[in-house]
Amino acid sequence: MNVSLPGHTRHYRTVAFDEPSNEVLLIEQRLLPHDFQIHRAADFRATAAAIRDMVVRGAGAIGATAAYGLAQGARAFRGRGLAAFETHLDRVYETLKDARPTAVDPVNAMRQVRAALAPGETVAEKQALALAAAEEFANEDVRHCRELGEHGARLIRDGMTVLTHCNAGWLAFVDIGSATAPLYAAHAAGRKFEVWCDETRPRCQGATLTAWELAQQGVPHRVIADNAAGHLMQRGLIDLVIVGSDRVLGRTGEVANKIGTYTKAVLARHHGIPFYVAIPLSTIDWTLRRGKDIPIEERAESEVLGAWGVVQEPDGRRPQARAAGHGKRAYVRIANPGSHALNPGFDVTPPELITGIITPAGIFRPADLWPRRRELGAPSGTR
Amino acid sequence: MNVSLPGHTRHYRTVAFDEPSNEVLLIEQRLLPHDFQIHRAADFRATAAAIRDMVVRGAGAIGATAAYGLAQGARAFRGRGLAAFETHLDRVYETLKDARPTAVDPVNAMRQVRAALAPGETVAEKQALALAAAEEFANEDVRHCRELGEHGARLIRDGMTVLTHCNAGWLAFVDIGSATAPLYAAHAAGRKFEVWCDETRPRCQGATLTAWELAQQGVPHRVIADNAAGHLMQRGLIDLVIVGSDRVLGRTGEVANKIGTYTKAVLARHHGIPFYVAIPLSTIDWTLRRGKDIPIEERAESEVLGAWGVVQEPDGRRPQARAAGHGKRAYVRIANPGSHALNPGFDVTPPELITGIITPAGIFRPADLWPRRRELGAPSGTR
Repeated sequence: MNVSLPGHTRHYRTVAFDEPSNEVLLIEQRLLPHDFQIHRAADFRATAAAIRDMVVRGAGAIGATAAYGLAQGARAFRGRGLAAFETHLDRVYETLKDARPTAVDPVNAMRQVRAALAPGETVAEKQALALAAAEEFANEDVRHCRELGEHGARLIRDGMTVLTHCNAGWLAFVDIGSATAPLYAAHAAGRKFEVWCDETRPRCQGATLTAWELAQQGVPHRVIADNAAGHLMQRGLIDLVIVGSDRVLGRTGEVANKIGTYTKAVLARHHGIPFYVAIPLSTIDWTLRRGKDIPIEERAESEVLGAWGVVQEPDGRRPQARAAGHGKRAYVRIANPGSHALNPGFDVTPPELITGIITPAGIFRPADLWPRRRELGAPSGTR
Repeated sequence: MNVSLPGHTRHYRTVAFDEPSNEVLLIEQRLLPHDFQIHRAADFRATAAAIRDMVVRGAGAIGATAAYGLAQGARAFRGRGLAAFETHLDRVYETLKDARPTAVDPVNAMRQVRAALAPGETVAEKQALALAAAEEFANEDVRHCRELGEHGARLIRDGMTVLTHCNAGWLAFVDIGSATAPLYAAHAAGRKFEVWCDETRPRCQGATLTAWELAQQGVPHRVIADNAAGHLMQRGLIDLVIVGSDRVLGRTGEVANKIGTYTKAVLARHHGIPFYVAIPLSTIDWTLRRGKDIPIEERAESEVLGAWGVVQEPDGRRPQARAAGHGKRAYVRIANPGSHALNPGFDVTPPELITGIITPAGIFRPADLWPRRRELGAPSGTR
């Protein structure tokens, strides 16, 4: 999407590839929203490190990063012979896979790239095919987000207020995003609405990444405390909720997503407000049988006990005298020093609380995913 | 309650009076949980400033502070004659009232003190009566909190996990607190349970004040993100919710409290978990007819867009080299710099979501407040 920096506006993808230098280009997400930088990963090991160290995050984005990383590794091969090339490629694959061992997207993306190498008869041919397949993977991610955005945009009418949670935006994909895709499509179509971004404690991706994205695209928005959603729904001030997902169970319609999603779904149901989940088809898990079996990652206590930000005056001024630490990015401990925290990172929302699942293939009731699994791209052996 | 500082443990009230020096003593709440200090207000103007500047907060605590402030002002009178004394007292009253114009507690407290002066026939007699009445107001606050704690403790059994929101603890009263009173009573009775403190964004009173209080009293507890409550209830990990309140409508049973309370009440109902509100009788408003008429204060955006804490490493270490700003209290801007926030400070929970109201007079269903208003101390004209 477009990013406005002092003096110019440019189109950026979250993940891109620079062919002449054989570098993977990533928007450095750890510095957002306070600083915009492009991170250049010079070789496949640097690309793996960028995934591991959270330069890039989000299902679609890390999938594309791994796809490009595999092509990058393939193109850097300086040995001789196909056997040596394949051995080298195994090492690249394992290095990138190990960068985020619990994620499924990098593995699926790299399998797709590797499968595309089969027709190549020489190392050079396989190298060219790898890059083409990685580009195709990234373009497909963008195309799917655009398609689901068109479907979802039909839900947004003039005067609405739309609540979103966490960041399922273009920073989590190659471009456009999932939960944000309907917002961008409706905005491009000239519809007038406001987005309320849940802050999304403890990591605050709503206040930081989603608010930054929406600001770049000129979509009217405000940040709210996660605590405010119930009150705003009670007062009739929220018309629609759209969130993303890390994993949707194709068999049950259960939705795993950032902690707090389930709370918003319960609130939406209590107030009769439509609650939608927007995903590319790759987010559907056709294997797992019960939401209870989705592992809920317990994350570091420090996320709950404090927060990251830029030191400044509460009114936004940065003092002329630049007192110690002002203007610097810092972690502050908020909670009582001796106290501990419990920090489940995700939750699971049951299908009965979900109005619809917005996909590139259209909008589906959660209970319809399984009967309509063929049009949703379930592997042919799925039963 | 008891506060443990390096080298000793002492009993402190949130608000106290030092008769020889004629000073009001307050726990400096703006520095908690990172620093414990006693703030000494040297005259009634300093006491008013302490209320205004949030050295002290919480309904019971600011009521007692104003009561002591009025006695403090009365005792500092150096003029001659009862007429001059009354004029002086008017000025003291107005100064303390203006310190927190929207609050009702300081006014009620000062009226109670002033009414007690009637039997005095000399300035000296009235001065002595003022101090005695202020002491009685503070002791009554403590007694009421202790009584409601005894009633509420019956709800807490071994092995339970209790969720609380914001700080309705002893820092918000003279001692003991309202929502925390049942916890302290059950803990003193030897019951084994754990408390989960909602962080309570945006001002984080749960992570700071409530966690600090519970730590001082040795009550097992952990801080959770406000987003985690729904997930934890879904997994059967919360047995009971107890919150405080800023205002309970005696006619309807509606409860105004810190933003996010309503969300927790909806979640509790969805999961069939008991949801209780603990209050002294002074919190019941017998006049207002509809919760919709309770003004919801819209607070500063900066509360949502950032947070206060102490700059440190996320793992709790303070670097040896004390880098710039480390160990200092600071505000960090979390949200995207150009974005705005919406920050309603309170919400209103309807009676149908409330299992019971814990008071010094026992536990009442919300619908029973009005029919039983006489035993709850409603003014005799209330109808």
